[in-house]
Amino acid sequence: MFSPSLTIIGERINSSRKRIARAIEYKDAALIQQEARMQQEAGASYIDVNAGAFVRREEQFLPWLVKAVQEAVDLPLCLDTPNADALKLALREHRGKPIINSVTLEAERMNAIVPLVLEYSCKVVALTVDESLIPADVTKKFDIAARLIDALTKAGVSVEDIYVDPVVMPVSVAGSAGAETLGAISKIRSHFPALHIVCGVSNVSFHLPCRSLLNGTFLAMAMALGLDTAIIDPCDSAIMTSVAAAEALLGKDEFCMRYINAYREGKLGERPKE
Amino acid sequence: MFSPSLTIIGERINSSRKRIARAIEYKDAALIQQEARMQQEAGASYIDVNAGAFVRREEQFLPWLVKAVQEAVDLPLCLDTPNADALKLALREHRGKPIINSVTLEAERMNAIVPLVLEYSCKVVALTVDESLIPADVTKKFDIAARLIDALTKAGVSVEDIYVDPVVMPVSVAGSAGAETLGAISKIRSHFPALHIVCGVSNVSFHLPCRSLLNGTFLAMAMALGLDTAIIDPCDSAIMTSVAAAEALLGKDEFCMRYINAYREGKLGERPKE
Repeated sequence: MFSPSLTIIGERINSSRKRIARAIEYKDAALIQQEARMQQEAGASYIDVNAGAFVRREEQFLPWLVKAVQEAVDLPLCLDTPNADALKLALREHRGKPIINSVTLEAERMNAIVPLVLEYSCKVVALTVDESLIPADVTKKFDIAARLIDALTKAGVSVEDIYVDPVVMPVSVAGSAGAETLGAISKIRSHFPALHIVCGVSNVSFHLPCRSLLNGTFLAMAMALGLDTAIIDPCDSAIMTSVAAAEALLGKDEFCMRYINAYREGKLGERPKE
Repeated sequence: MFSPSLTIIGERINSSRKRIARAIEYKDAALIQQEARMQQEAGASYIDVNAGAFVRREEQFLPWLVKAVQEAVDLPLCLDTPNADALKLALREHRGKPIINSVTLEAERMNAIVPLVLEYSCKVVALTVDESLIPADVTKKFDIAARLIDALTKAGVSVEDIYVDPVVMPVSVAGSAGAETLGAISKIRSHFPALHIVCGVSNVSFHLPCRSLLNGTFLAMAMALGLDTAIIDPCDSAIMTSVAAAEALLGKDEFCMRYINAYREGKLGERPKE
């Protein structure tokens, strides 16, 4: 099994995907469990579960997803919902220490979610989003990150349990979106060495061709700047090839052995010569 | 033609390659000129010329290379030699403003090369190498870079004409080699915004499989940290795919048009669906 030092949150069990939504609706545990096992095998350390497409039935579906996934894999989950009621029910089913995805600086969301983070001693994703909008530039992203860390640590959350996500927007919409998020990662990392920095990278490539290429390249650049966790599809071989190369290049793969093994197993898009 | 905002120095005309050495030895101008045209077509802004394999005949071969290449392409060259005599003869043949590759902090080399940089008003690559060894860590690389910049600017070279190269060693030899060079790029960039930072990236992947993947990934990471010039093979499609992705992601490709065109031309390793 590929076990990178990047912490990977597998993103595949998301109700925005039609196939997954159908499986959730019909409680097709086998399909969900297969998705969970595939992601564990591919290197995920957390499995994200999202039932947000079912506005009125999230309270029913999210706990069911937790149970179904943890029957199949021995991994903690990333509970992907702003809905405190659904979250509470999901937390009751969860074994181990999950990540709650996510809080923002919005007071209502903070007040609803933080008590659950503390009660169930969870980790938590904190998006650099405030009451108004998703900020576009390094300074504002950093400022919100610092305020989030301050609010969460004051509430009693340890800094090692916080995963700040400096939300990346599509470069097809704003050309500077990638550079600003990379700049924010670098600035946040230099100020908070013990913090986790996470990113859902796939947004960056929205509306462009060869998205895996862009996602993998962005991920490698973000890792060079201090990202240590990523919400990605670990079954996407182009992205995982980027991760393997980036870790070898960043000295996070002793003697480049994982990279060399990935090559020998034909996982780098080029087979060894016989 | 692909015209990236990364400045590319095409590295193919190097006498360490057997095919090139043979062409130089037998003065096969057609082969050399074909190599030059291919690199220009692929996006090179400078053509590196190296005859260093011919210890006693560099004075003969380097000026010949300059003439042969500039008959074929209308580009300035990167004159790749520590040999001041060969360099002087090459400079007499050169049209335009070349880059001299390279000086180091070694006094003898500095004293021999800097007068030529000034006399022929050239640009110059400055390797972070001092009298002793190639330094391995960020602090020493940065320290040498700062001393090089100080020495060159005091001698009268403008900072905009200096290309500092924080020499990368193979990660197969020292696992931290890539991270230290990336750290040096970041630190040098934050202190010297007007400086050029260059890297011959291929060294990083020495002795590992899928070298183009590593070289391209390293280049994308280095660009995110402030590299603006690279000594690469612009005919290597894996590397150029990385460059196209990195520039789209870093906001250096307006409306991602170069990236989208590269895709339409089938240059991203994935053909558009008909």
